[in-house]
Amino acid sequence: MTSNQRTRLALALLALAASLTAWAAPPPRVSQADIIKQSAPSDWRRLDPENTLVMEINGQQVILELAPRFAPQHAANIRTLAREGYYTGSAVVRVQDNYVTQWADPADEEKEKDKLKPLGTALAELPAEFSIPFKGLPITNFTDPDGWAPVSGFADGMPVAADPAQNKAWLAHCYGVVGAARSTQPDSSNGTSLYAINGQAPRALDLNITVVGRIVKGMEVLSSLPRGPGAMGFYDKPEAYIPITRARMLADIPAAEQPNIEIMRTDTTTWRKLVEASRHAIGGWAVHSALHSNICNRSVPTRPIQGAPTPG
Amino acid sequence: MTSNQRTRLALALLALAASLTAWAAPPPRVSQADIIKQSAPSDWRRLDPENTLVMEINGQQVILELAPRFAPQHAANIRTLAREGYYTGSAVVRVQDNYVTQWADPADEEKEKDKLKPLGTALAELPAEFSIPFKGLPITNFTDPDGWAPVSGFADGMPVAADPAQNKAWLAHCYGVVGAARSTQPDSSNGTSLYAINGQAPRALDLNITVVGRIVKGMEVLSSLPRGPGAMGFYDKPEAYIPITRARMLADIPAAEQPNIEIMRTDTTTWRKLVEASRHAIGGWAVHSALHSNICNRSVPTRPIQGAPTPG
Repeated sequence: MTSNQRTRLALALLALAASLTAWAAPPPRVSQADIIKQSAPSDWRRLDPENTLVMEINGQQVILELAPRFAPQHAANIRTLAREGYYTGSAVVRVQDNYVTQWADPADEEKEKDKLKPLGTALAELPAEFSIPFKGLPITNFTDPDGWAPVSGFADGMPVAADPAQNKAWLAHCYGVVGAARSTQPDSSNGTSLYAINGQAPRALDLNITVVGRIVKGMEVLSSLPRGPGAMGFYDKPEAYIPITRARMLADIPAAEQPNIEIMRTDTTTWRKLVEASRHAIGGWAVHSALHSNICNRSVPTRPIQGAPTPG
Repeated sequence: MTSNQRTRLALALLALAASLTAWAAPPPRVSQADIIKQSAPSDWRRLDPENTLVMEINGQQVILELAPRFAPQHAANIRTLAREGYYTGSAVVRVQDNYVTQWADPADEEKEKDKLKPLGTALAELPAEFSIPFKGLPITNFTDPDGWAPVSGFADGMPVAADPAQNKAWLAHCYGVVGAARSTQPDSSNGTSLYAINGQAPRALDLNITVVGRIVKGMEVLSSLPRGPGAMGFYDKPEAYIPITRARMLADIPAAEQPNIEIMRTDTTTWRKLVEASRHAIGGWAVHSALHSNICNRSVPTRPIQGAPTPG
């Protein structure tokens, strides 16, 4: 078979696969808004206080939910860094359009070594945590092809891609997903510098860097910051840095001050219905159904706490 | 076959298709930066002066390239609106995070009818221009599955999706793509209100609305504006509106003031090489190759004019 023939055969198989997938789905009649309205209290969960970092930027709250199942050592280090005050006084130093918003120690790693924030009891070096075993992962699969990976879905409220043949699963670089910046060495991240995706999902980053979690509230704070004029969106002057005025683990925030937010579970029939509904034009405006959904197009609903049980 | 069996068969076919596609591609050794560096003058084109709208927002330039092949009547109307001064003094009225930045007449359509800008010789009503025939479209195909459509690629520098079985092709809602806002009726857009995609490609909008072109410069101006506090990101007070201080067709701008920009052609071997290179980890940083590319992840390079031939 020539390369062209293989490509043509692949495309034909894809078309067949797409038609089979579409055929398998009975069109739902309930809108996403109605599914959320009709959800049960058990369809929602609170944020885990030990795995949630609450930051304040420009007087607004930005909440990062960590993914300890996927990056346990990074999650532990971020927890330590947060508790020992590392992130308070760190700053957004880079905003590259349609790519990442990145925060770090504002001091220059090379020229201002004496000004660098102390790591305290946090570890300077961690292993790369690019993927975990697929086997046993409680993933709620999407039925439509992801393109970037053979399997995609949600686990622990996070967008996940997987390759069962290689027994690998990893967090996908969707909008709002947060990773640990690294230099050339794969194991050079430790959580002191983090980035959030602010545009089209750069899925080519998947399996190249440790993903630590997802912004569940306040992503619009990070996405609307001025883009940096430098080559990769770095701010060229420290005066342009945008300080993180405070960062605390949710567990360390007094109950009365805790953010009033609960989040939809992604391991429920309600979530499956929501994903299925997103594949169809329901209601007045849309005239065409895509009959397709992608993990990076699905945001997990949040709402004010309505008596959901505490986790664990 | 049950629904589950069909889904399983579809997934198996997809996996096979993916492996065939990957197998078909010999890994390139040249980076995207080097491909751009080694490009010939004929790999580049200038913007068509009759199909380029140059806007000024917050003292910065935002350039919209129209797609007359896909939406000829909207392109013609936008040209007329621009030439008769409609957009100068219109304003960004809506910024919804991870969705759209929208601009329109700042006057309220219901409450301020007397303040509405006159349409002049532009048409108030246009047909919906959601798709064109696929047959004969000069598209540079992507070989990887798009997921949202059986065929995807670029035509006239724009991201395109297509369904050959239905003989339909349409512009895909990728980051920076611009559409004509409409109300409930499919044919209720006329180009007076336009929106640009500022986040993850909301491809479910495809075939539901007329796409008119793509921002080729200054998208970061539109994407970094404050998000509107209203339900769909509308600014709740007219004071928050961000004026378009000037908007002109490129053809009407004196030569000395014209933006110094040329854009890579997407119907060349150089472009194909660039797309192929994006599928592979080349160079120092990345350790994993996605062996996948998607139209919405590929931006078309621009550069200062280096003696490219004028169009036509």
